[in-house]
Amino acid sequence: MLVPKGEIRNNLESGLPILIYDFDGREEEVDMVFYAGAVSWKTINILRKDAGGLICYVTGYTEAKKLGLTFMTEIVKEKYPQLYKRPPYGDEPAFALWVNHVSTRTGINDEDRAKTINKLHETVSTIKKDENEARQKFYNEFYAPGHVPILISRGLKNRKGHTELTSSLLEYIGLEISGVIAEMLGDGKSLPKDKALLYAKNNGFLFIEGKEIVMEVMK
Amino acid sequence: MLVPKGEIRNNLESGLPILIYDFDGREEEVDMVFYAGAVSWKTINILRKDAGGLICYVTGYTEAKKLGLTFMTEIVKEKYPQLYKRPPYGDEPAFALWVNHVSTRTGINDEDRAKTINKLHETVSTIKKDENEARQKFYNEFYAPGHVPILISRGLKNRKGHTELTSSLLEYIGLEISGVIAEMLGDGKSLPKDKALLYAKNNGFLFIEGKEIVMEVMK
Repeated sequence: MLVPKGEIRNNLESGLPILIYDFDGREEEVDMVFYAGAVSWKTINILRKDAGGLICYVTGYTEAKKLGLTFMTEIVKEKYPQLYKRPPYGDEPAFALWVNHVSTRTGINDEDRAKTINKLHETVSTIKKDENEARQKFYNEFYAPGHVPILISRGLKNRKGHTELTSSLLEYIGLEISGVIAEMLGDGKSLPKDKALLYAKNNGFLFIEGKEIVMEVMK
Repeated sequence: MLVPKGEIRNNLESGLPILIYDFDGREEEVDMVFYAGAVSWKTINILRKDAGGLICYVTGYTEAKKLGLTFMTEIVKEKYPQLYKRPPYGDEPAFALWVNHVSTRTGINDEDRAKTINKLHETVSTIKKDENEARQKFYNEFYAPGHVPILISRGLKNRKGHTELTSSLLEYIGLEISGVIAEMLGDGKSLPKDKALLYAKNNGFLFIEGKEIVMEVMK
């Protein structure tokens, strides 16, 4: 049973993470998820110290399309067709481009990655107001390749990864589809679900399962 | 004054890192560097916990060319010309593709990233023996996009980044041009040089400056 919308939204808007477990039989990984509209350098610091995976920006399919972004998979198919293969869990990856904001220094430290993400959030938030302005902002203010991967949701009907779970949840609770995620890692292996649950409990963070999101969002 | 070749080589071959500071006035960052031929999951663990930056695989220009790899910058120029811009420190980025080995589970945990890097090392080490075999191995055993960025050296004459410093140093001491690097980060900002020096001293790791490498390698 999904926790109330308002509670999820309050947590995310005040800069707290939620933890999302995908599904038994899929990746079986827990991602730490923040709302990109509430990110500071401390968010990046927590993501790299407590989560440990790749710190990625997540947005929706419509948003990415309006910015003119496509999946890296399409580029790989064209440029390196032999490197196009499905990961063992079956789905095509959600990766688009890796970018830096032009105001970053080298792009990688906590402040720089927070800046890139804040500006990506500003850009995606501009789409509803003025699509052309958002697009111009994107092409004027970012360069690639950089240090923050952009992940594009394919929609929960097409793919059930953390990218789609995050974007569906953000849309469901009425926020911009603009999140930041990283996989939670243990020593050697991905952090097991029970340890992630304990971490969530000890820190007072919400823990949500993919199946709960699917039930609520797709009903 | 560069420490003796043998000492650098012994450290790297036994799986210890060396720390490389680039240059005053450039990135002014310290990278933690391992030899890819001596990487285990514990290496990835140390890189993400003690360094904190992006964990990248480094190889040489000749090696990359023989595998058929090009710079991501070339792809960006073609597909997203408006996103082609120089970083503030001037050089074009060293990024090529982000890959996973086919035997990884999701690609991100310590074991998976170590596996991808071990197999990249095997592939690059095969080039000298049989170029075609190396190329086949690369295209058969990897897929993109994945979780380990490949960085290609442009040679120290063309670019003086950590990618070129690492590859020049590996070549100089007689190892394969096959390394793993990540930027050392502090809270918020990149780890200052004096703190990196202290970390090196406390852990008994070698600390080498870009200018020392340039002096030795280019003389």
